Amino acid sequence: MEDNSLPLILVCNDDGIFARGLKELVAAVMPLGQVVVVAPDKPQSGKGHSITLDLPLWYRTSHAFDPGVTAYKCTGSPADCVKIALYKILPRRPDIILSGINHGSNSSINLLYSGTMGAAMEGALHNIHSVGFSILNFAADAGFEDIAGYVRQITSKVLAYKGSDTLCLNVNIPNPAEHPIVGIKTARMCRAMWDEYYEENIHPNNRKMYYWLCGKFVNHEPDAPDTDEKALSEGYISICPVKIDYTDYAQLDEISRWEF
Amino acid sequence: MEDNSLPLILVCNDDGIFARGLKELVAAVMPLGQVVVVAPDKPQSGKGHSITLDLPLWYRTSHAFDPGVTAYKCTGSPADCVKIALYKILPRRPDIILSGINHGSNSSINLLYSGTMGAAMEGALHNIHSVGFSILNFAADAGFEDIAGYVRQITSKVLAYKGSDTLCLNVNIPNPAEHPIVGIKTARMCRAMWDEYYEENIHPNNRKMYYWLCGKFVNHEPDAPDTDEKALSEGYISICPVKIDYTDYAQLDEISRWEF
Repeated sequence: MEDNSLPLILVCNDDGIFARGLKELVAAVMPLGQVVVVAPDKPQSGKGHSITLDLPLWYRTSHAFDPGVTAYKCTGSPADCVKIALYKILPRRPDIILSGINHGSNSSINLLYSGTMGAAMEGALHNIHSVGFSILNFAADAGFEDIAGYVRQITSKVLAYKGSDTLCLNVNIPNPAEHPIVGIKTARMCRAMWDEYYEENIHPNNRKMYYWLCGKFVNHEPDAPDTDEKALSEGYISICPVKIDYTDYAQLDEISRWEF
Repeated sequence: MEDNSLPLILVCNDDGIFARGLKELVAAVMPLGQVVVVAPDKPQSGKGHSITLDLPLWYRTSHAFDPGVTAYKCTGSPADCVKIALYKILPRRPDIILSGINHGSNSSINLLYSGTMGAAMEGALHNIHSVGFSILNFAADAGFEDIAGYVRQITSKVLAYKGSDTLCLNVNIPNPAEHPIVGIKTARMCRAMWDEYYEENIHPNNRKMYYWLCGKFVNHEPDAPDTDEKALSEGYISICPVKIDYTDYAQLDEISRWEF
């Protein structure tokens, strides 16, 4: 039953409709408004801001949640889920879009590949405040009970925000099994890279090689005090605001002096 | 045969190994160095910066090019192609990574969804100058003969660039069938949106609805003089430098005053 006096909260993720983190996010923010879930019908990790152009999509009611939670599964990417929610499913424009809670970090350059943040960035494109939540623990039982209060607090803060900008926040949460959470810090995106390699093996049928991406995260500025990685390493939840304009204005100035 | 004295040019795209734009890009830059193509084995439009994490990849020699062009097709996304080229295929670090020529615009917010630019951004992450080229014409015969000289000129300029920054350039080319090209302009990413809707129809087998994303591009700042859209509308090739740090520093300053 719809109650227009409550904030409408759209919840999405990239780990798919059955992910534990999605259920935990819904449970954390249920007290704040009317929740509608529109999430991918299968895992979509690493899908970034991809969208489906060359195929149709469909969505169906999901029964993966307790009665009282309206939920749909969709065949598309996280960003597709946000689009189809806004254009086809929701009874009105949501007050906020939440994505997650992702199982694994989306800090630093992980943001670029993140389907969780792809959904949040899609929301911000539509001028709707959007927050992606990620936890630095891949386990289903990742210590969600310790973080629900923080997730609710950050969501409340954004719902109450009266500034003129649209917010798109990348929130990362330390692994509660490793760090007691000591607070919340705003932070910039850290410069880092994955030290990557491909694990090779032989395809059992056609006898040719296949390659599986593996890697180790390397922080390129471990001593910088103001990065998301630093905040996380000290046990803080990091909040990094994301800009949708990717123009490099310093370089724009420089290359505008090129002569052709 | 490898010649280490020539620049090594990695060429990728998102329309796939058989796309006409890829062939035209290779032809345009062949005089500038040794070209190796690593491109998706199927179209990957709209895949953004997505990567393949949960499946293995493979690549095979492609015979889609004239003898003299070393080419591989890969099962992954454009960004996967760049990774596997760097880690497994290329004999040495390339001097430049080129992506395209994309059939269709990647100006303005199209950048966010663009597989073409996903490959370029992946290249820049590895500190290799990278350029994505796109043409505002979806036809196979898009007027490539009129633009090869510009593509070669921009690539030469980047190869000769001696600055300390890594360049990641989003180059868009007006439709030669509509505009004689009048020159090259550097420009920022325009604020715009797609006015989107889903075309609905009934799945012929299961009788339920399916939804296909459609839309019309709407420029939200048509009068701004310094955007990529403005440059393109005046017949200029637009060059927008892309920043890999997505932090919104103005918002960071503001939300760092929030109290939790």
